[in-house]
Amino acid sequence: MRHFLTLKDFSKDEILEMIELAIKIKKETKNRNFKPYLKDQTLAMIFEKSSTRTRVSFEVGIHQLGGKGLFLSSKDLQLGRGEPMKDSARVISRMVDKVMIRTYAQETLEEFAKYSKVPVINGLSDMFHPVQIMADYLTMIEYKKDKNPLVAYIGDGNNITHSWMMLVAKLGLNLNIATPKGYEPNEEVSAKADEFAKYSGAKISYFNHPIEAIKDADVVTTDTWISMGQEDEKEQKLKDFKGYMVDKKLFSLAKKDAIFLHCLPAYRGYEVSEEVFEEHQEEIFDEAENRLHVQKAIMVWLDKRSKNG
Amino acid sequence: MRHFLTLKDFSKDEILEMIELAIKIKKETKNRNFKPYLKDQTLAMIFEKSSTRTRVSFEVGIHQLGGKGLFLSSKDLQLGRGEPMKDSARVISRMVDKVMIRTYAQETLEEFAKYSKVPVINGLSDMFHPVQIMADYLTMIEYKKDKNPLVAYIGDGNNITHSWMMLVAKLGLNLNIATPKGYEPNEEVSAKADEFAKYSGAKISYFNHPIEAIKDADVVTTDTWISMGQEDEKEQKLKDFKGYMVDKKLFSLAKKDAIFLHCLPAYRGYEVSEEVFEEHQEEIFDEAENRLHVQKAIMVWLDKRSKNG
Amino acid sequence: MRHFLTLKDFSKDEILEMIELAIKIKKETKNRNFKPYLKDQTLAMIFEKSSTRTRVSFEVGIHQLGGKGLFLSSKDLQLGRGEPMKDSARVISRMVDKVMIRTYAQETLEEFAKYSKVPVINGLSDMFHPVQIMADYLTMIEYKKDKNPLVAYIGDGNNITHSWMMLVAKLGLNLNIATPKGYEPNEEVSAKADEFAKYSGAKISYFNHPIEAIKDADVVTTDTWISMGQEDEKEQKLKDFKGYMVDKKLFSLAKKDAIFLHCLPAYRGYEVSEEVFEEHQEEIFDEAENRLHVQKAIMVWLDKRSKNG
Repeated sequence: MRHFLTLKDFSKDEILEMIELAIKIKKETKNRNFKPYLKDQTLAMIFEKSSTRTRVSFEVGIHQLGGKGLFLSSKDLQLGRGEPMKDSARVISRMVDKVMIRTYAQETLEEFAKYSKVPVINGLSDMFHPVQIMADYLTMIEYKKDKNPLVAYIGDGNNITHSWMMLVAKLGLNLNIATPKGYEPNEEVSAKADEFAKYSGAKISYFNHPIEAIKDADVVTTDTWISMGQEDEKEQKLKDFKGYMVDKKLFSLAKKDAIFLHCLPAYRGYEVSEEVFEEHQEEIFDEAENRLHVQKAIMVWLDKRSKNG
Repeated sequence: MRHFLTLKDFSKDEILEMIELAIKIKKETKNRNFKPYLKDQTLAMIFEKSSTRTRVSFEVGIHQLGGKGLFLSSKDLQLGRGEPMKDSARVISRMVDKVMIRTYAQETLEEFAKYSKVPVINGLSDMFHPVQIMADYLTMIEYKKDKNPLVAYIGDGNNITHSWMMLVAKLGLNLNIATPKGYEPNEEVSAKADEFAKYSGAKISYFNHPIEAIKDADVVTTDTWISMGQEDEKEQKLKDFKGYMVDKKLFSLAKKDAIFLHCLPAYRGYEVSEEVFEEHQEEIFDEAENRLHVQKAIMVWLDKRSKNG
Repeated sequence: MRHFLTLKDFSKDEILEMIELAIKIKKETKNRNFKPYLKDQTLAMIFEKSSTRTRVSFEVGIHQLGGKGLFLSSKDLQLGRGEPMKDSARVISRMVDKVMIRTYAQETLEEFAKYSKVPVINGLSDMFHPVQIMADYLTMIEYKKDKNPLVAYIGDGNNITHSWMMLVAKLGLNLNIATPKGYEPNEEVSAKADEFAKYSGAKISYFNHPIEAIKDADVVTTDTWISMGQEDEKEQKLKDFKGYMVDKKLFSLAKKDAIFLHCLPAYRGYEVSEEVFEEHQEEIFDEAENRLHVQKAIMVWLDKRSKNG
């Protein structure tokens, strides 16, 4: 049985297999040809953090596959209210066919997966967001940016950055990461990515300034670095991320036909300007929609692998 | 593509078409003949305000139509937590087939609809509650109160009143509205209703006393004017609405066979007496059930119109 | 029409009929042969209290029966926010086919059932937890502990204890209950159980010490007596329940092949030791899974009885 906790655990061939399946399932979906790949199955969707995209895409996705999603907010569960994760995992995985978890800690996911009888999918953790990056890669293919592309990630070194690093390292792409000092990606993840890069021929470069990093990029991407409700940190962040807003001027350094991706929610005036966002809204909302298609593919892929042992 | 945001946007023929469809679908439902009019479709149900009836009726309704409802409480979403409505609309409407919103502000609905790729339904706003009034009209037909009836609305000039005004104005019925001074319906809505009334022959009359308004009414209706949790306003409201409780004595001024409607929840001892409520519980709970049937019809009607362009 | 509010209302034959149905449905489920016993039906699941097991088991269960569950948290409803239960019951039961309620007060259930047009199931109340005990009995059968067994309940006299008393009294089994002084089961329930025991030949014995009660038991069970968040009571409880932890030493007094059941969540170091829990985890998680199967059987059984009048 396989889980989908991080791209680290998958080979290039496996990743491309899932992407191909996503392309096929997206086409069927667009033709309203809903094949019941997961007929009679149930997906537990456990949310320690709220979410629009993850919620809607997984719940619609499993429905379109002939199954049923259960939205389990951690406040509606006994998770974390004294019940050990290993007990919750053993109970829930006796009753459902797949589990998706959106959690604060990668360890929560791993603990759950360890005790689960069914495949577990990472719907976001503090360390990785692999379903998002799979959707991003599908979008790159659709915009014909998958042939030896240079991806420029401009912003905070976070779970999104880590998943980009893993994707690029596995597939042999090129990635420039620009973060302010002190906001670099996790060192263990960097080391792991370098290790994979040796095999795949990937090139990952680190910068502490956006201008060099974005130069001639085929794909520009960022993520929020201002969290709502953390007003105390805001002033410091604004200082630290000075010059990191992807605006018209910065974007003009990328290739002429570069696309812009954003995993959303977007905070205009911080990591991206309103102008750049709205000029690239087609890519961005294609990217959001691709969450639906790619996650369906991941669920179907895991299901096949579970049955084959 | 059409949205269902207010009855203002629909012609008499269109309203009657939806009602006829509701009658047909209700009959099928009662025979447990569930036709999959919206097979494989998904309905996002976005709630900024909690609700029993709206929640259950929409979620059961879409299920009985062969589709799937997603209950999205605004606290489980990123709506209003910094994400612009236009982004939420563009993401969600990429993934689902219909959207229902229960919101504080009509503008929220209109903003969402503007950016939505799929039909949007008003599940209640501060200005209108059109699905409720459609259910009310279906109930009037079932109780044979649809031939040139006089409807008396006794209470606060609110979203329910506004939707009554629109229905009556479009269909050419008669409506007496009794509100205390200062609680009159919105003036723009009144002006709009008067405009439609000229075409339809509707007669809408305004009173500041319930006794004249209820006289010889075929249908008596009211709505709560005491909101739970607003204890500070309570004393003032009790003064202002003195004499507005629909009790046995007041109700006796209506026609002998008058029916009583209430959109619920009902606060006995305030807008209605326990006695009047329980004597008319059959109509009231038929009315509540009709939310289910009429909303199914509205969804199916919008679906047809979306396909025809 | 029948409700499932407490085992008090069912004959031995009826209980065994439901259990047989559960065995049949479990076998079908294990073969992934999902028969649509409740096709097109909807189950309202009303939660005044959060829950993992009850939520997942009912929502997956109704789905596997071809129907649809609506998760209605009381905070998403108008229940208890001023709307009388009798109104909520009349509205909801007009729109759905079955209702499950997890509530603080047995009276809430009874009030709802009184006004409901459809069968109501107790998903837990302060007085009884009959679906849990049905799952426990199914587990006993699977472990061949149903032939004249002695069940030892060690702990707090609560809703779980009461439902054990009812099951044993109806089926003619043997039950030892050990509670500290002041934590005995409800006297009315005891009197009722004694009354049924006369007919069935059941033997229910009360102890204020666990050692005598557990001696030669075939089935040992307990339930939490420490509630999270009630830290003030904790110290007193620890004193009162001294010696009541089911640990290796205490458990060794039961029969050699005794099984251990726990309705979960379990608080290690309080009512049970980590060692005993993990040694018996197979029974415990079979028991948890049996909630799914037995509840499906109860819903199907109620459905048949509703149709036959």
